[in-house]
Amino acid sequence: MDFKAYERKVFYYETDKMAIVHHSNYIRWFEEARVGYMEQMGYSFFHLEENGVMIPVTEVNCSYKAMTRFGDTVLIYPTITEYTGTRMTVSYEVYNKDTGVLTNTGYSKHCFMSSAGKLGSLKKLLPEAHESFLNSIKN
Amino acid sequence: MDFKAYERKVFYYETDKMAIVHHSNYIRWFEEARVGYMEQMGYSFFHLEENGVMIPVTEVNCSYKAMTRFGDTVLIYPTITEYTGTRMTVSYEVYNKDTGVLTNTGYSKHCFMSSAGKLGSLKKLLPEAHESFLNSIKN
Amino acid sequence: MDFKAYERKVFYYETDKMAIVHHSNYIRWFEEARVGYMEQMGYSFFHLEENGVMIPVTEVNCSYKAMTRFGDTVLIYPTITEYTGTRMTVSYEVYNKDTGVLTNTGYSKHCFMSSAGKLGSLKKLLPEAHESFLNSIKN
Amino acid sequence: MDFKAYERKVFYYETDKMAIVHHSNYIRWFEEARVGYMEQMGYSFFHLEENGVMIPVTEVNCSYKAMTRFGDTVLIYPTITEYTGTRMTVSYEVYNKDTGVLTNTGYSKHCFMSSAGKLGSLKKLLPEAHESFLNSIKN
Repeated sequence: MDFKAYERKVFYYETDKMAIVHHSNYIRWFEEARVGYMEQMGYSFFHLEENGVMIPVTEVNCSYKAMTRFGDTVLIYPTITEYTGTRMTVSYEVYNKDTGVLTNTGYSKHCFMSSAGKLGSLKKLLPEAHESFLNSIKN
Repeated sequence: MDFKAYERKVFYYETDKMAIVHHSNYIRWFEEARVGYMEQMGYSFFHLEENGVMIPVTEVNCSYKAMTRFGDTVLIYPTITEYTGTRMTVSYEVYNKDTGVLTNTGYSKHCFMSSAGKLGSLKKLLPEAHESFLNSIKN
Repeated sequence: MDFKAYERKVFYYETDKMAIVHHSNYIRWFEEARVGYMEQMGYSFFHLEENGVMIPVTEVNCSYKAMTRFGDTVLIYPTITEYTGTRMTVSYEVYNKDTGVLTNTGYSKHCFMSSAGKLGSLKKLLPEAHESFLNSIKN
Repeated sequence: MDFKAYERKVFYYETDKMAIVHHSNYIRWFEEARVGYMEQMGYSFFHLEENGVMIPVTEVNCSYKAMTRFGDTVLIYPTITEYTGTRMTVSYEVYNKDTGVLTNTGYSKHCFMSSAGKLGSLKKLLPEAHESFLNSIKN
């Protein structure tokens, strides 16, 4: 399956006094892109929630290779790069849409939690998502 | 009763590409100041919540008279300027601590809601808060 | 001229512990919508900046009529409701795209500033924008 | 030299619909703590800026070990854990002040840039900061 990149304009309020996007905002963009990616796989936040599955963040990482500014549009490509049944890593590449420059790479690590707040295996919590995530791994 | 001003350093990430604090952040500072003000009156968010009272925002307003920058410290003075038993207005003055300049004025309007989500009168929901708020009105 | 509404999904990180969009974020959405509206009129931030014109915010206001949640999409309609040559008011209506419910109304007030930081009349700073803004007034 | 921890109350608007602090905010707290730490070393943002030194972020990382909620106060301990003259890593530990629980660990990586935008060695740009940072390394 081919996934559509997540496209996003930079908002004015995301810039800082260096006139570039503040580094913390990329972590938020990763989340936006991850939500869209999961939806494309058929697992919207609400579908997961209705099935009693939450996917908390256990670690985030972002590397800054080039700056992004107000007026820029970015394309974000998330992919599942690790999936063990109980843990998942989603990796991200951010590109400047106009120049094609790779501006950021990063990842978020996740576990799976039942609505009762217990850590668990996705295979048990939602078997069809388990299959989808397993099939989506890129290395 | 005399209330202590809410003191707050400007954070780097609150600035925008004009190198001034982005105008949306003052609305957040008002909330920070309001929480501290309610605590000084003896009504912390948690005390209110435990007593089944929520105080949602129905309107906010902020006027920008002077700019604030990274490195500045502000002093915020909230006061209850209107209180009807079912509605309340909290007004704010923001000063630059170092220069004494009035940088912002504004207000937030609120209603009172029971934990069941029903609008109500604070007199019924939490009579002692009703008395405190009534006594705090400044015109 | 007919303007396209500004369409916007709610981001997860814009919610607060009440599970609704935090009230400060609407001020940011107003800015997003205003930037798009100015662009549709032919006056992008960069076009204005290149012509030495800045449009700072002097006041903001937002009324909360209904809540917005993660999963919702909003449509925002900005219009110029006051324009004097030296001052402008942009008013906003926010609708829930799916239900059609009006969730928020508000406005932002602005002045015009030259790149040298002096307040000025838009008629002098950028005459064609003066004409456009004048023609866009809705009451 | 002993450094004071950076103490910080959680703000209401930093929570998300899970009723916990949104994970992106820790990256912002790291910056707040780093600014205070640099100030304690005698190198405020403005002192560095006046001397033509900027310290951009090249990578950030945060691990989430326990949740933080509105009402909590955190203590953040930043330390320089790597310093090469041209690159620096600042590591962070976040503790819940009331319970003593370690809630987060993380780091930010930095380079040194002259005001002309050129990467450089801090030894050349600001020799006394070079000495301070070198002496502060903890492993």
